[in-house]
Amino acid sequence: MNWSDTALTRQLRIRHPIIQAPMAGGPTTPELVAAVSNAGALGSLGAGILDPEEIRVAVAEIRALTDRPFAVNLFAPSRPRENKERMDRANARLAPYRIELDLPAPPNPPGGLPDFGEQLSAVLDEGVEIVSFTFGVPGSAELEQITQRGGITLGTATHLLEAIVLEECGVDMVVAQGMEAGGHRGGFLGDAATTQVGTLALVPLLADHLHIPLVAAGGIMDGRGIAAALALGACGAQMGTAFLACPESGAHPAHKEALRHATETDTRLTRAFSGRHARGLKNRFIQEMKDAEDWLPDFPLQQALTADIRATAARAGRTDFMALWAGQGCPLVSDRPAAELIERWMAQLNSILGP
Amino acid sequence: MNWSDTALTRQLRIRHPIIQAPMAGGPTTPELVAAVSNAGALGSLGAGILDPEEIRVAVAEIRALTDRPFAVNLFAPSRPRENKERMDRANARLAPYRIELDLPAPPNPPGGLPDFGEQLSAVLDEGVEIVSFTFGVPGSAELEQITQRGGITLGTATHLLEAIVLEECGVDMVVAQGMEAGGHRGGFLGDAATTQVGTLALVPLLADHLHIPLVAAGGIMDGRGIAAALALGACGAQMGTAFLACPESGAHPAHKEALRHATETDTRLTRAFSGRHARGLKNRFIQEMKDAEDWLPDFPLQQALTADIRATAARAGRTDFMALWAGQGCPLVSDRPAAELIERWMAQLNSILGP
Repeated sequence: MNWSDTALTRQLRIRHPIIQAPMAGGPTTPELVAAVSNAGALGSLGAGILDPEEIRVAVAEIRALTDRPFAVNLFAPSRPRENKERMDRANARLAPYRIELDLPAPPNPPGGLPDFGEQLSAVLDEGVEIVSFTFGVPGSAELEQITQRGGITLGTATHLLEAIVLEECGVDMVVAQGMEAGGHRGGFLGDAATTQVGTLALVPLLADHLHIPLVAAGGIMDGRGIAAALALGACGAQMGTAFLACPESGAHPAHKEALRHATETDTRLTRAFSGRHARGLKNRFIQEMKDAEDWLPDFPLQQALTADIRATAARAGRTDFMALWAGQGCPLVSDRPAAELIERWMAQLNSILGP
Repeated sequence: MNWSDTALTRQLRIRHPIIQAPMAGGPTTPELVAAVSNAGALGSLGAGILDPEEIRVAVAEIRALTDRPFAVNLFAPSRPRENKERMDRANARLAPYRIELDLPAPPNPPGGLPDFGEQLSAVLDEGVEIVSFTFGVPGSAELEQITQRGGITLGTATHLLEAIVLEECGVDMVVAQGMEAGGHRGGFLGDAATTQVGTLALVPLLADHLHIPLVAAGGIMDGRGIAAALALGACGAQMGTAFLACPESGAHPAHKEALRHATETDTRLTRAFSGRHARGLKNRFIQEMKDAEDWLPDFPLQQALTADIRATAARAGRTDFMALWAGQGCPLVSDRPAAELIERWMAQLNSILGP
């Protein structure tokens, strides 16, 4: 079948109905983004934690490697509830780990995320045409800024109400993120702990209500998953974990190694690393912080508090303190190059859904 | 496509790759089971809590309505940890509800489930050819009893290890139950609270490891879901919630009415009703018992403790104390007759996966 002529692929100017998920914090190197886009799918730079200059550099690097379209992903601005008592309590809770890792007391106040407006300006100044968002919907002024330049926007929904809000606000496409997905839950309405809907239940429901292209995410690891996504009513599949162990991925080698041995029941949803629910391989930090889930500071405050712990653990290759983001499909992960995977998946897809 | 010539449909002697899920406690009336089987799919009687005589009567009623194959589902025997302290605590916790519902103190000791061996004998004496199991795998003697008479057995797995154990023990087919599924989690190894794998991640993994037919369950509500299940590597789909609001279903009218208004984020996983994790629409009982989840007695002890509460609530149509089992696909539920739904789903399936 000619997948390059669907509502999704036409608008995104790609050949295959596959989006490589934005994975902030390292995995989505310019090499991975470009390899995916060169292979006919859509690469995405996870730029949510990059400052404007870092975004400019990364986009230039991608551009040097591909002339195909790619997306940049930003975090919609968060408004954490400031609460000194919870911050102090979290700091006290993390103190033993700092001692164990030989770290000084954390900065006070902790660092925040780069300014969203400045990030977006950098993205647009660089002429990026596809911008995806997680954690909410940007303001109408910002969306207009993008669309006025002919840009295309994608929002992330974890349940129907979020998808409807995104469409009403004017995004061009919605990514339906099922609970199987690795990394952060991209939603923004309701309690993420009680809005864990599986991809298979989520996608047809959203497909029945939306009038814009829908992309399925969560648990999709190969051509079978892509075929399932399309059968359920999506126009394409967004895949993150499936690219995490590629040679082009910037995931930490210890993270890739942990993925190799992971089972489908090894992932947990946790707020311990960032203050937002995210799915990763269970490790000592997640297990030991479990009883603190309810009161840890909001994103990105908790993320700032754990920044030095995560960075130090990564330098030492200590997986017990690293955020080993992974979706429930992780046992099907492959360490082959991105282009080879995409070719293999498309062959599977075509054998399932016909030529 | 001719679905009646696949490994699943050939063995089960059905035309469509659809199994109506066994739903113990009322929904799977003889009328529903027979309607599904007459329509070319496989009806299932949820007989886990029926005593041998009730099984005989129900099977005779099904036989009077259809000459097509159908399945009977039994619970593999449970071995609850007896713990007087937890029983007393649970009783004390339930006491205010008994007062509110004007109920006397519960029987002590509470009733148990009917004897598994006697249930199985009733099933086999009645000549039932297809027996499915949840909550574990029966002993080898029991499995042999079934296969010696030419019977076919299905086991339920919620993760890969359970599926492998079921195949090793000699069941003929495995139902892969994703976390989206309504009602009881059918698994038997590990902590059900941490083995919540979505259908889309679960099915291809099991398909890669099993040598026997695999059936997908959880979140499948129409032909799109069935097509997704087949694309993922299953030979068929087991659907429960999708049949729950049919006129032939014995679900309580208030349960059907609640399903009509439910959203995809309204279900919760709870042990409060039975002592085993099960998914149902959130209501007062689930919410109020939430903090007791960790210590409530094991299945079927908690089930026995709440039996009078559930029965009284049902008689009064009080949904706040009823177990409103539902999967995450519940917003797509339909109140049309089973045969009409199956016909509609097969048309969808054929339009997606080709003629």
